[in-house]
Amino acid sequence: MLSNVRIVLVQTFHPGNIGQAARAMKTMGLVDLVLVNPRCFPDPEATRLAAGAEDLIESARVVGSLKEAVNDCVQVVGASARLRSLPLPHFDEPDEMAKEITEHALDAPVALVFGRERSGLTNDEIGHCTHQVSIPANPDYGILNLAQAVQVLAYEVNRTWRRRPESGYHPTRPTGEKLPSREQLDHFHAHLGRVMQASGFLTQPHARTEAQLQALFARAQPTRRELSLLRGLLSALEPKTHSPDNDQA
Amino acid sequence: MLSNVRIVLVQTFHPGNIGQAARAMKTMGLVDLVLVNPRCFPDPEATRLAAGAEDLIESARVVGSLKEAVNDCVQVVGASARLRSLPLPHFDEPDEMAKEITEHALDAPVALVFGRERSGLTNDEIGHCTHQVSIPANPDYGILNLAQAVQVLAYEVNRTWRRRPESGYHPTRPTGEKLPSREQLDHFHAHLGRVMQASGFLTQPHARTEAQLQALFARAQPTRRELSLLRGLLSALEPKTHSPDNDQA
Repeated sequence: MLSNVRIVLVQTFHPGNIGQAARAMKTMGLVDLVLVNPRCFPDPEATRLAAGAEDLIESARVVGSLKEAVNDCVQVVGASARLRSLPLPHFDEPDEMAKEITEHALDAPVALVFGRERSGLTNDEIGHCTHQVSIPANPDYGILNLAQAVQVLAYEVNRTWRRRPESGYHPTRPTGEKLPSREQLDHFHAHLGRVMQASGFLTQPHARTEAQLQALFARAQPTRRELSLLRGLLSALEPKTHSPDNDQA
Repeated sequence: MLSNVRIVLVQTFHPGNIGQAARAMKTMGLVDLVLVNPRCFPDPEATRLAAGAEDLIESARVVGSLKEAVNDCVQVVGASARLRSLPLPHFDEPDEMAKEITEHALDAPVALVFGRERSGLTNDEIGHCTHQVSIPANPDYGILNLAQAVQVLAYEVNRTWRRRPESGYHPTRPTGEKLPSREQLDHFHAHLGRVMQASGFLTQPHARTEAQLQALFARAQPTRRELSLLRGLLSALEPKTHSPDNDQA
């Protein structure tokens, strides 16, 4: 479950980044924040930028070492933009990372570890990780702001979690409007065909053109209400001739 | 191509958000930024928070209406957290949106439109869109900061783009170290087996235990160098008996 996914921020320099990271976490359903030796914390900037996620700030644990922060975790993924010499298993894609850690998060805590704004994680800290992940980015400018990196990885974790049956997630659908029946659509097609002829646009029935326009309207998937609108419009546009045939439905 | 994907920010209140959005864009390879009636722009906060993406700030166009911003676009996707009464086609998932717009971006400009920090987009502005997209989030706290929303959608666009053959993207792989041959692995397995017996851990060959440990090492995929390390360690651990058999390789 998502409550087992811990976000660990190591020696964050700007308290504002802690606040923005907390907000990013909360939008994605994550709640467990641990700070390793933050430079300034607690701090009004952290609270201010948490903007509705102050509860995460208040419940955040502050510890003195990465070891303390992740000791109980069965997986520890270091988010690192830089390739390292230490050959840890590496996720090239955040969604692969998310698949792996949401699987383990069913039973036990797992951690996503983010380093300092400027220098990331030390080799020593990478040594406390079981995996590394990087966020594929612009090769010319690829370093995301700390809170942005948290947002992206939290988003991928949430996305993967929602797809698991255990999450019980169902997308909210707006109340659907009624769709017309085939019969109602056929009436509409017939009406459209008559208007196309009566207007002189077609001099005789032209199956291909009619089919093309019918397909276009099919793609629009008009509701019953919209079909009525269209039929009303067709009626208003229907050329008035002096033939009694005009009174057809 | 990614240069055809335009980010449009409507009436952004905080210039800092413009800066952070520019940075988010640039990390994901997007370059075309258009601002509709920004409250404060240009502004030192925008430049400061762009942090390396100032070129996007400098080349950003400022226009007076959303219409101007998207007139040449073949698709206009409004990022909106709130369900609307206007039944535009709606992407429930950002990756579905990204598939659609990267397809069209091959040939023509497309736009992702973000509204005001507090109130999003007006119904009128949604009327200038061909689609809507929302970022699935915590139902109790689901509104991402503006620049965070830009980051997530830009990330999805980049991710989808990289998977297209046209992008020519290849993940950078660190220079692979050489893997051992089957023969070298067999030598290792034999060595391991001898040490397990010589140490008294196994009193006789035990196929199951040996196979289990061999499988564990197989999962680790040791390089040649690592295998040498392991063999050196096994040799050092190998109990010294007084039998001339010790001098086997």
